[in-house]
Amino acid sequence: MADTAVRPETDAPTTVEQREDETSSDPRIDVAVLGRQLLGTWADIRLSSREVAKQPEVQRIDGLSMAEHRERVLGQLHYLVANGHVNRAFPKALGGQDDAGGNIAAFEELVLADPSLQIKSGVQWGLFGAAVLHLGTEYHHETFLPGIMTLDVPGAFAMTETGHGSDVASIATTATYDPDTEEFVIDTPFRGAWKDYLGNAALHGKDAVVFAQLITKGVNHGVHAFYVHLRDDEGVFLDGIGGEDDGLKGGLNGIDNGRLHFSGVRVPRVNLLNRYGDVAADGTYSSPIESPGRRFFTMLGTLVQGRVSLDGAATTASAMALAIAIRYGSERRQFNAASDTEEEVLLDYQRHQRRLLPRLATTYAQVFAHDEFLVKFDAVFSGKADTDDDRQDLETLAAALKPLSTWHALDTLQEAREACGGAGFLAENRLVGLRQDLDIYVTFEGDNNVLLQLVAKRLLTDFSRKFAGADAGALARYVVSQAADRAYHGSGLRRIAQTVSDFGSTARSVKDLRDPDTQRGLLTDRVETMVEEIAGRLRDARKLPKAESAALFNANQNELIEAARAHAELLQWEAFTRGLEQTEHAETKQVLTWLRDLFGLGLLEQHMSWYLIHGRLSPQRAQAVTAYVDRLIARLRPHALDLVDAFGFEPEHLRASIATGAEAERQHEARAYFEAQRASGTAPVPEKSKK
Amino acid sequence: MADTAVRPETDAPTTVEQREDETSSDPRIDVAVLGRQLLGTWADIRLSSREVAKQPEVQRIDGLSMAEHRERVLGQLHYLVANGHVNRAFPKALGGQDDAGGNIAAFEELVLADPSLQIKSGVQWGLFGAAVLHLGTEYHHETFLPGIMTLDVPGAFAMTETGHGSDVASIATTATYDPDTEEFVIDTPFRGAWKDYLGNAALHGKDAVVFAQLITKGVNHGVHAFYVHLRDDEGVFLDGIGGEDDGLKGGLNGIDNGRLHFSGVRVPRVNLLNRYGDVAADGTYSSPIESPGRRFFTMLGTLVQGRVSLDGAATTASAMALAIAIRYGSERRQFNAASDTEEEVLLDYQRHQRRLLPRLATTYAQVFAHDEFLVKFDAVFSGKADTDDDRQDLETLAAALKPLSTWHALDTLQEAREACGGAGFLAENRLVGLRQDLDIYVTFEGDNNVLLQLVAKRLLTDFSRKFAGADAGALARYVVSQAADRAYHGSGLRRIAQTVSDFGSTARSVKDLRDPDTQRGLLTDRVETMVEEIAGRLRDARKLPKAESAALFNANQNELIEAARAHAELLQWEAFTRGLEQTEHAETKQVLTWLRDLFGLGLLEQHMSWYLIHGRLSPQRAQAVTAYVDRLIARLRPHALDLVDAFGFEPEHLRASIATGAEAERQHEARAYFEAQRASGTAPVPEKSKK
Repeated sequence: MADTAVRPETDAPTTVEQREDETSSDPRIDVAVLGRQLLGTWADIRLSSREVAKQPEVQRIDGLSMAEHRERVLGQLHYLVANGHVNRAFPKALGGQDDAGGNIAAFEELVLADPSLQIKSGVQWGLFGAAVLHLGTEYHHETFLPGIMTLDVPGAFAMTETGHGSDVASIATTATYDPDTEEFVIDTPFRGAWKDYLGNAALHGKDAVVFAQLITKGVNHGVHAFYVHLRDDEGVFLDGIGGEDDGLKGGLNGIDNGRLHFSGVRVPRVNLLNRYGDVAADGTYSSPIESPGRRFFTMLGTLVQGRVSLDGAATTASAMALAIAIRYGSERRQFNAASDTEEEVLLDYQRHQRRLLPRLATTYAQVFAHDEFLVKFDAVFSGKADTDDDRQDLETLAAALKPLSTWHALDTLQEAREACGGAGFLAENRLVGLRQDLDIYVTFEGDNNVLLQLVAKRLLTDFSRKFAGADAGALARYVVSQAADRAYHGSGLRRIAQTVSDFGSTARSVKDLRDPDTQRGLLTDRVETMVEEIAGRLRDARKLPKAESAALFNANQNELIEAARAHAELLQWEAFTRGLEQTEHAETKQVLTWLRDLFGLGLLEQHMSWYLIHGRLSPQRAQAVTAYVDRLIARLRPHALDLVDAFGFEPEHLRASIATGAEAERQHEARAYFEAQRASGTAPVPEKSKK
Repeated sequence: MADTAVRPETDAPTTVEQREDETSSDPRIDVAVLGRQLLGTWADIRLSSREVAKQPEVQRIDGLSMAEHRERVLGQLHYLVANGHVNRAFPKALGGQDDAGGNIAAFEELVLADPSLQIKSGVQWGLFGAAVLHLGTEYHHETFLPGIMTLDVPGAFAMTETGHGSDVASIATTATYDPDTEEFVIDTPFRGAWKDYLGNAALHGKDAVVFAQLITKGVNHGVHAFYVHLRDDEGVFLDGIGGEDDGLKGGLNGIDNGRLHFSGVRVPRVNLLNRYGDVAADGTYSSPIESPGRRFFTMLGTLVQGRVSLDGAATTASAMALAIAIRYGSERRQFNAASDTEEEVLLDYQRHQRRLLPRLATTYAQVFAHDEFLVKFDAVFSGKADTDDDRQDLETLAAALKPLSTWHALDTLQEAREACGGAGFLAENRLVGLRQDLDIYVTFEGDNNVLLQLVAKRLLTDFSRKFAGADAGALARYVVSQAADRAYHGSGLRRIAQTVSDFGSTARSVKDLRDPDTQRGLLTDRVETMVEEIAGRLRDARKLPKAESAALFNANQNELIEAARAHAELLQWEAFTRGLEQTEHAETKQVLTWLRDLFGLGLLEQHMSWYLIHGRLSPQRAQAVTAYVDRLIARLRPHALDLVDAFGFEPEHLRASIATGAEAERQHEARAYFEAQRASGTAPVPEKSKK
């Protein structure tokens, strides 16, 4: 939490600007209209998936053993198939709907039922099935997809190895082509190359898509995907295949994660999923993409939907956490500083507001950002806008948004749990179970820190393109202007000037800070300056020997990741601001504007030391930020329940006894008891008052 | 994470001071000696308790059902009794050892075996038993303690109610004295007054210490404790008593938490634990402490040991997390930026270091702070130093340290989990289970946010004592000097002066920052200034009507809590610094000094915006802080394994397969495979190199 020790002596509005600011001080949110907006582009599909999530059959039961939970979730997948919920992503020719975006929207909502169900569905249809769909060709679609779609063939997505997670290019499993039999021979060369953490691998998987280094004619063509049969109809591993159960995990225990290894396992040549690389009968390799590097990233890029759906599901889980904690905080009373007879509800405490409302603002930003993200995904995967640039933008977006939203989910679930005290620790109130299940979201489908580095590299590449065709003179001029900028911003000159002009005029700077252009300018400036500074430090990296270059990069790694985070925060802020522009109901828009301002100023507060050091904000203005954040929080407090109601969760979704009004009933009963006692005159006299 | 985007262009030591700083750059830690120091004042007791924790009988088994886990932990308590491990806290006259400090030291180490065991032991002997010991008198000791000590009588500590947790004074259960039968009648007036979250209540508890408002002769004398029989020998509730099982929780499922309620339950007058308040046969109330408020806090103060032991256990869990993650990070390799054939170990990545080493520094600070805390506790409870002031200091220390260390444990366990990727999510590697169990530590035995407010109130009280006897003139002078201070610090005057003198001289400021007096000065200044500022804003609070006064406090609540946190951080820093002074081995001391500096400068970095806004640090010096933190981290990296080895955990304590060297073996095997392949000339040629 940022430091918040300094702020103006009073919060009362005393200037014209502040009074203006208060005029529209009692707006009402139109919860239904806002709720519809939050559902986004695929609102109807989301609503129908939420109906599915209301069915007891698909809901999590706490306290099942691992074995029971796994069987239950497998059964739930069959339930989805039987009720026609899994075909959206697949080709119309095979009974699907060719609806990439709608498919993801529907699956994200399953987190309401049980995250194990969401993720096991994701393994079956979003990874295993999607690999066949996107990396395979017609033969594979016709041969394998029908069984995958009906769940006759549960399957594993065998990419990760014990020794290699996010660095997929370095996996060590090999698939060596044997022209004599026209087969690939799949081998696990050592223990670290065992496939690991694979859903469906421990028990249910009959087949798998196995990623391996494709070797033919003595050449390694890099990672490719192969369709491999794992088990016979009795569930026994086929010859040459072995495995282990990953056992109990921190969460998601409805999924049978496990390990696999291969010794001389032979698969027919046609089992290579050959859309991006093929081997002829004689062993000749061919690919429509010449560069091995680009080929690799293209193949991996087809699997971006996992990151998309994690971003959505994590945002939904954050919203659930806040819906539970804000409802409870609005009913539960504790301590009575302000009155002799009435305790305060938790949400009237400033600290409680500070704990929950900024996280609500971030969650809203993520809802808007996710919908834009899913639209982009749909455009690429439907072929509507599917250039190389589109794909790269999509991947960068995924690498930026997934880390922030999954970390935010853990942070929010935890804060909500603590804000509900002991009640928050009970499984019946959902928060701990959700947190346990979502824990792995921050490191699977790309470790968050690794993903942010991908974003940072993209930012550096974009930056260097500015100078791609430039001669030495241009670069030198850049370096000089960079130095001049440092002198101006870094030495405090600009800051000092601003200090003088701001002096005694907090109100004016608050008005400034409410201006979205000011917020955008400050957030953008930070990203650009961070990237410029890092690029400046790395500008000689290519000239250095490999080890020194790596060391130089490494010395900047932490800042690179922070720059990527700043970029992702800006993307979220922009999406929130665009979403706001779509809001037509004026009073709703007013409240959402406060919430967006809370998000934007919250980011400034969080990164305040950067703004101060770089002279972008004066100390006075920094104080105004915190003071205004406090005012925004107080102003939003009466709208907190409406803002979480707009998420549209029904009791069958939240299933948390503390979010059902039970606490309000208890409070009512307690109050009635004390009132009756006072009225009857039978109340014991406090010892204190006797003295 | 603080912003770290700005730092000097080079890390190479170029000035005399920097070179001096590097001279002792290759020290070696004496792990054994440091390990002994870390064990602290009760080293031998800790070691013997760690031997207990190595026994399979007392260790957690993952994946047990809740019912099985509960039975297992109950059995483990009997094991502790049978092996003579539970008597230290109890009177010698009853077979105990009267060793308050040693008792806590021993119990804290049980977290190594299973946190459920630690906490269920704590319920039985640290809460239920300790309440009888500290709130009861000779009759209770003789009558009840023997059965408690032998576990013939498992018991609940029935304080918390569904409607009242941290606000114990407001619990609603009543114990009304009936002089006709010389009994107390215990009643639960409404659902919110049910006792809740009580260990031993759902199943095993035969008796309980029940806290209730003591009412006699129509007067409520406030909260007192009563010894109550709950269940008969068949485990059936006695007449008038009912309850519920709290069911599955986010962790600690080896403990049978539950709810209790009472309807006209009669207990003999002598079952009032009457050390601090008694009722004569005729119903006359008497107490050695006249003020009901002071009496209440004295009674509660006897129960501080729960907070002490949570501070210790949380610190041990943090140390375990780091021992696992740093071991794994030293072996696991991923990506090969620096070499064509060799991947880097995770801990060589700057980000990985940034994630783990500052948390290691904090954990060390906590180890030292905890030992001092326990010495203080022992002095009070052994009667060696047991004045009112001592007790108040102890409670303030508990309220300051327990929140920081329990939050730190969750943060560190999570970061360690993520730093170990998918392996970190497997139950077999311990991190997720520990995090689940420790989650509740941040809100039980006093909610962390509530505890920090107690600290803040103490800080404000201490501050106002400066002016207790002062006339209006003195207060006015204070207000004036306060304003002058604001003008000096807050307007940037001091900052600007420093900017000028610092210009171009990062090195000198680094040397400054290494000076413990500078660190202490900066940390102390922040606490004092925050308290002063808040006190200034609250100075009229007492003159205001109750509601307005409460609103004024509430508007400062967040800052009050942050001031308390700053105070607690200073306490930890001071303890670390004192610990350092005890370190005799010079090279060990050198490394520990770097670690202490990392802790101190890490705090400055975290709160940098405050230092900048208040003109305590210039932007240049702020940059020097981050640059020096980076240098310290790089310098500490080679010592990371030694620093976690010094915690002294054996494989039977960690029981994490990734912390056994298994990963190093896998890496060795993989390397040998590739080396053999290269040597034999059979390695496939990368496609890339063919072009």
